[in-house]
Amino acid sequence: MRKGDATRVRILDEATRQVAQRGLIAASLGDLAEAVGLSKSGLFKHFESKEAMQLAVIERAQEQFTEYVWRPVQDLPHGRPRLQAIFDRWLDWTETECAAHGCPIMALSVELDDQPGPLRDALQRGMERWRRTLMREFQAMRQPPMAEAEAAAAYFQMKSYLLGHSEAKRLMGDPDARRSARAAFHALLDRSEG
Amino acid sequence: MRKGDATRVRILDEATRQVAQRGLIAASLGDLAEAVGLSKSGLFKHFESKEAMQLAVIERAQEQFTEYVWRPVQDLPHGRPRLQAIFDRWLDWTETECAAHGCPIMALSVELDDQPGPLRDALQRGMERWRRTLMREFQAMRQPPMAEAEAAAAYFQMKSYLLGHSEAKRLMGDPDARRSARAAFHALLDRSEG
Repeated sequence: MRKGDATRVRILDEATRQVAQRGLIAASLGDLAEAVGLSKSGLFKHFESKEAMQLAVIERAQEQFTEYVWRPVQDLPHGRPRLQAIFDRWLDWTETECAAHGCPIMALSVELDDQPGPLRDALQRGMERWRRTLMREFQAMRQPPMAEAEAAAAYFQMKSYLLGHSEAKRLMGDPDARRSARAAFHALLDRSEG
Repeated sequence: MRKGDATRVRILDEATRQVAQRGLIAASLGDLAEAVGLSKSGLFKHFESKEAMQLAVIERAQEQFTEYVWRPVQDLPHGRPRLQAIFDRWLDWTETECAAHGCPIMALSVELDDQPGPLRDALQRGMERWRRTLMREFQAMRQPPMAEAEAAAAYFQMKSYLLGHSEAKRLMGDPDARRSARAAFHALLDRSEG
């Protein structure tokens, strides 16, 4: 990694933390520059524009998520074993990795959902790719594979339980959040096995 | 309603819209004052402090939700009929009432979940009251009533599907969002009838 690349990643990781905490619009270039020890004009040696930096932050947040949730499970057998591991790892992401600042992807979702444009497009693209990946895992639970519509319905429920877990855990401080989410998800897997 | 009260509600309704769109911290007193045709000092004739106003905004957002979702269903029979109507009305809240600016309660949830203090306490209190109300409706589905732990698990799933619907509809623009959420919820009601 060249020095410029390492600095770029350092800027993006700090920006991702700020976005998780305050959102994309409220995140301040001044604070970001200070946190990484650069001037504002120093920041822009690494990005063509503010929007280019915001786009890179969205991509970096999704990359962090993939590294954390997907990388450790990608060699597990398809279907139920891999889905269970992804779900647990995703709970860890919410409970541990995002404990201090919140989840950048969740923050981006709520902020951008009513703002059409290239930023929302980038976020949607990443989430749609991930949705397709998980649908394939549900389809792999049965032989012959589950129909696409059923896999989409199963994905909807899986994602819902993760959103429910995040709210119960982070906002409501519910000590049963993880247990509730896992129980609901395992029942879904049982139903999906058909 | 006295003139002062009417102005107070007008300020709070405008503030709720701004909070839904930008969050509590990013919402600007200057913009708020301009939107309701008052000076900043005029605003503070109605609230003792900025924090008192933020607290009132949280209460007003929850009041709006209750008026929209609960009032029309409160005379329906307990249990399944009322739960179905609440769920549909809640989908309408997300799809229609919050279409333009987003849901203020969702925005507050994501913003306040990592900020302990009186604002988060107020939000939690309202949500916990609503959770208890819905748990009682699940319990009323069976005679003898469903155990509290089972009602809590059913509530967790109901809330999850609503969060899943909101993300699928608002962020992903999924045309099947409502259908997916209703299908998942009706299957939950079937399972809950036992």
